[in-house]
Amino acid sequence: MKFVSFQSVDGIRLGIVTENGIVDVRTVAEKNSINAPITIEEVIAAGDDGLYQLQQVLSLAEDVIEEATITYAPAIHCPGKIICSGANYRAHVAEANLNIPEFPIYFPKYQSSLAAHNEDIVPPSITEQVDYEVELVAVIGKQAKNISQEDALDYVFGYTVGNDLSARELQFRGPQWMFGKAIDKFAPIGPYLITADEIADPQDLDLKCWVNGELRQSSNTQHMIFPIAEMISDLSKIMTLEPGDVLFTGTPEGVILGREEKIWLKAGDEIVCEVEGIGSLVNRLA
Amino acid sequence: MKFVSFQSVDGIRLGIVTENGIVDVRTVAEKNSINAPITIEEVIAAGDDGLYQLQQVLSLAEDVIEEATITYAPAIHCPGKIICSGANYRAHVAEANLNIPEFPIYFPKYQSSLAAHNEDIVPPSITEQVDYEVELVAVIGKQAKNISQEDALDYVFGYTVGNDLSARELQFRGPQWMFGKAIDKFAPIGPYLITADEIADPQDLDLKCWVNGELRQSSNTQHMIFPIAEMISDLSKIMTLEPGDVLFTGTPEGVILGREEKIWLKAGDEIVCEVEGIGSLVNRLA
Repeated sequence: MKFVSFQSVDGIRLGIVTENGIVDVRTVAEKNSINAPITIEEVIAAGDDGLYQLQQVLSLAEDVIEEATITYAPAIHCPGKIICSGANYRAHVAEANLNIPEFPIYFPKYQSSLAAHNEDIVPPSITEQVDYEVELVAVIGKQAKNISQEDALDYVFGYTVGNDLSARELQFRGPQWMFGKAIDKFAPIGPYLITADEIADPQDLDLKCWVNGELRQSSNTQHMIFPIAEMISDLSKIMTLEPGDVLFTGTPEGVILGREEKIWLKAGDEIVCEVEGIGSLVNRLA
Repeated sequence: MKFVSFQSVDGIRLGIVTENGIVDVRTVAEKNSINAPITIEEVIAAGDDGLYQLQQVLSLAEDVIEEATITYAPAIHCPGKIICSGANYRAHVAEANLNIPEFPIYFPKYQSSLAAHNEDIVPPSITEQVDYEVELVAVIGKQAKNISQEDALDYVFGYTVGNDLSARELQFRGPQWMFGKAIDKFAPIGPYLITADEIADPQDLDLKCWVNGELRQSSNTQHMIFPIAEMISDLSKIMTLEPGDVLFTGTPEGVILGREEKIWLKAGDEIVCEVEGIGSLVNRLA
């Protein structure tokens, strides 16, 4: 199933994307008195029952909303945790002058970091080195503690596209990267959240990033140093992952940081991040 | 005002600590039909109006609960963010073999990291190097974005005591500390949350830590490299701080990491963290 969250006068609404347009879940559920989850957080919490109820919603939907008319919300908007993987593609590690990590490297973003597809991003006035990072983003579906790599992907609800925007001089002003990462609106995710059953192999997806139409990043998730299952298992050894938690899985080579001539992102630049089979996330710097 | 959160059959309750015992806010508010905040999160969100309503609650309270009978909850239990400052006391930086930082250093914990006063802490099986860190903890009271150091303390709702428990071999398995820090139950806070008006100067408080009765840390918050106001202002330049957000402000010297003979915490050890005028936080390793 393919979800989209969008703005409405009474808050963020959940839509299901179909070939004909977007089904507004709450409207259909209310009209037909179906007990169905009406936010993406409720969908994830409800598990298989929720997806079954949404199949009913789909089968009863009479009208659709044209996608061109909606204002997107972040693909998931109230995650308990946002955990990002750093230095997780070999060629990116090289361009960033980092060492190949022995273990996965994590850093945080927060709910205030989220932004939506098509949303303009206003960088803080204290940075002049804004950089893009296209990433596959996994969303946890079930509580996970001490799980094996073999079982780990069963705990993924679905996938979306993320741009792990970074302020490089702030990221490297000291030993911990958080200050250049956990910035307001520096974690756009979307446009869609696609359930895991629709992704044959999350470790074989092309991912690309364009700036003003120029291709900057082009790789495949098979090049991750630590695959998603390994990171989920690893994290679950120290913390309880909860439904809705978000994992950015790292970016491949091609970021500005790794270029000889570093021309940082500036106001008006359009960044397009795309992951095969999941979607194309567009943002502009304001 | 001095708050405590405690467990009840129907969830976490808010208490006000008085000389005679604990006033159960919800019971008094319901009995007297007072519109008052009934969780610590609601108190913080309600601002001055909430504190005024709680004065009414206090004046009408007929019964109190004996503190010895309660099971504590974390002093604040649903913060949007938990941000920790690292390497923020000069003598601790020296014992940890770090460089004196030019800027504040931050790393995250999460809601799943919270634990209560008197709660037993079960470390993950993959660590054998658990260490204590007594810290003054500030809780944000108002939304804060781009605020000056001069104004920053006006955005603090109150203070509690924290133990920034750390798994040292996990913290240093790579360049980012998060994996040794953002561990389930590794952020006990409490027992009390004291409103900022009752703390004359948060930068002049003794803080101490004992392990099994042996004094290990003893310093004063005046020795912070970056005072609380500077960190809040600094963070607010990149992110929106929200009511209820939690800031651990760093630990002084005396941790196990800095000792010649490193005898890590083990099951049964009792750690007491105390900050002058705020409280004494006790936890045992399970």
